[in-house]
Amino acid sequence: MAENVRIAVDAMGGDYGPSVTIPGCALALERKPGARFVLVGEEKTIRAELARHPRLAAASEVRHSDVSIRMDDKPSQALRYGRRVSSMWMAIEAVKKGEADVAVSAGNTGALMAMSKICLRTMLGVDRPALACLWPTLRGYSIVLDVGASIGANASHLVDLAIMGSAMARVVLGLERPTVGLLNVGTEEIKGVEEVKGAAATLRESNLPGLDYAGFVEGDGIGMGAVDVVVTEGFTGNITLKTAEGTAKQIAAYLREVMGGSLLAKLGYLLARGAFAELKGKMDTRSINGGVFLGLEGLVIKSHGGTDHVGFARAVEIGHDMAKSDLMNRIRDTVALAHRFESGSAPTDTPPQEAAQ
Amino acid sequence: MAENVRIAVDAMGGDYGPSVTIPGCALALERKPGARFVLVGEEKTIRAELARHPRLAAASEVRHSDVSIRMDDKPSQALRYGRRVSSMWMAIEAVKKGEADVAVSAGNTGALMAMSKICLRTMLGVDRPALACLWPTLRGYSIVLDVGASIGANASHLVDLAIMGSAMARVVLGLERPTVGLLNVGTEEIKGVEEVKGAAATLRESNLPGLDYAGFVEGDGIGMGAVDVVVTEGFTGNITLKTAEGTAKQIAAYLREVMGGSLLAKLGYLLARGAFAELKGKMDTRSINGGVFLGLEGLVIKSHGGTDHVGFARAVEIGHDMAKSDLMNRIRDTVALAHRFESGSAPTDTPPQEAAQ
Repeated sequence: MAENVRIAVDAMGGDYGPSVTIPGCALALERKPGARFVLVGEEKTIRAELARHPRLAAASEVRHSDVSIRMDDKPSQALRYGRRVSSMWMAIEAVKKGEADVAVSAGNTGALMAMSKICLRTMLGVDRPALACLWPTLRGYSIVLDVGASIGANASHLVDLAIMGSAMARVVLGLERPTVGLLNVGTEEIKGVEEVKGAAATLRESNLPGLDYAGFVEGDGIGMGAVDVVVTEGFTGNITLKTAEGTAKQIAAYLREVMGGSLLAKLGYLLARGAFAELKGKMDTRSINGGVFLGLEGLVIKSHGGTDHVGFARAVEIGHDMAKSDLMNRIRDTVALAHRFESGSAPTDTPPQEAAQ
Repeated sequence: MAENVRIAVDAMGGDYGPSVTIPGCALALERKPGARFVLVGEEKTIRAELARHPRLAAASEVRHSDVSIRMDDKPSQALRYGRRVSSMWMAIEAVKKGEADVAVSAGNTGALMAMSKICLRTMLGVDRPALACLWPTLRGYSIVLDVGASIGANASHLVDLAIMGSAMARVVLGLERPTVGLLNVGTEEIKGVEEVKGAAATLRESNLPGLDYAGFVEGDGIGMGAVDVVVTEGFTGNITLKTAEGTAKQIAAYLREVMGGSLLAKLGYLLARGAFAELKGKMDTRSINGGVFLGLEGLVIKSHGGTDHVGFARAVEIGHDMAKSDLMNRIRDTVALAHRFESGSAPTDTPPQEAAQ
């Protein structure tokens, strides 16, 4: 890891392209002054945006690409016209070549996943990459995965998610032995699908190093911070994440409505505006923008496509911090240890971090 | 339908039994003064509670049962010891026998589902019952189903959910031709599982009467009121509902925290307390307590097990209103018409309501 984290950015990704990604990088640079950028995309547009952000310009290299991946294309289509030549691919490739420590894109999730997998490959012992997010809870943050990299998961995939998620929690949340829960329904008999029950049995019996399996978690347990790592497959995970974001936005709209109502309400709002600002910060879904692809031989961060520059900056900062903490190597070590452990050749339950040293 | 709606209550159901269900019924009676109750359970305990609620006592018949279904038993276990003799079964049976118009229970979901199915049977043309809830949105209410009756669904089950949900929306939301969306992930290629794609194709092509298929909806579209009816299978639906409830509770906790902080915040809170009360009402997850089992030959309402008397009252009121609007027969007609329509024997797209007259 270089002293300064080098961030490759797919400047064309997302609903708004450089008009959001470049100001986003500029904002991230204010908070992470050591960062260096490789900005990939339509050079003229990028330079025009950079002209307004001289400090970012000084910290950046621009790489031209004619090809932008469209938000609605299937991965197979995107690969056909975008392999090697698109801004998305070139950003990922910068990581592959060791020219950047992390790639960030707000582009098409499916295409980003497919290109990352082909360009970077998955880690030994990992079938499929996952998308993990930091979820604000009443206790701080939890890690929730998979929030949309793969649809469906068998028991063994879910166990992989538990292992990767707990490795991320060790690094990001600084926990020695994070608690891990499997997302499930509350009804008792039909306690979830077979895959979830199977993963529960494995996690309970194998007593893997570096994670503390805590059982099933229901939807309302996530925000309460019931466990440090919440594991689910990508379909449910993506819908769950977006539902929570939608609910936060809905309540923010209610709040605006009632506080703009009577004169007393307006006055009260004025007096308590410090408190409201704090609340707004806590409810800002942009603060959790930035999903981390786990299980790849390289770091890739996915930003929401529709976010603004504040949200994109957050994704860049998450990428910066993950690279700084050497997330990928830590995860690789954890996965390797867990697999040795599962196959019975690990002598002790030494936590992976120590084992790696 | 009798003039006064008759409500059979599993008084022993839920985490707290009669100490919540009886005050809950009393509260519901205040709002629905015409209601009549059949209260099933341990007679002595019920009578002791009723002593504090003379108006409810006057509107109720008490039926004794020795057997309460435990919250954690599997349906198969519950059926072994609770068939015919438990308070849950007897409440459902009152509907079957025509002695009540609707049954309400806060008990074990799986057991309630199994007993309802056995005692009441599913409607002709419906494979599996569904649990539907009213979800508050920025536009009013939407209906979301299945929120936990069945785990997993094939394309044809999802189409059934669309038909039953739109029938409920016609009755409950008073819409002529409600819009229906399939809950799905946002990533483009992997637009959901095969089942969801299959259901989309059927709904798009068959142009069923009485519903307007509007495509896929993402998690954050639910609270925005993107469509009137949101269709998903029970695993994702249950987790989605609970996640939204958890997020609302989490934000309520933030709000209490920031408003109790500085003196100014406290003062502001005091001034704006009318607005806060309004907000609290909008965020109160108890107001959406009360899932409706659809697709049965009888009306059964499921309340959250852990709710208080305010939440339970809401479930009773929902049951009251559904019975009053003759929900079950309307749904049966809609399902029958849709099936005739699917098989090509329906001559026009007459909406089901008119067709039933």
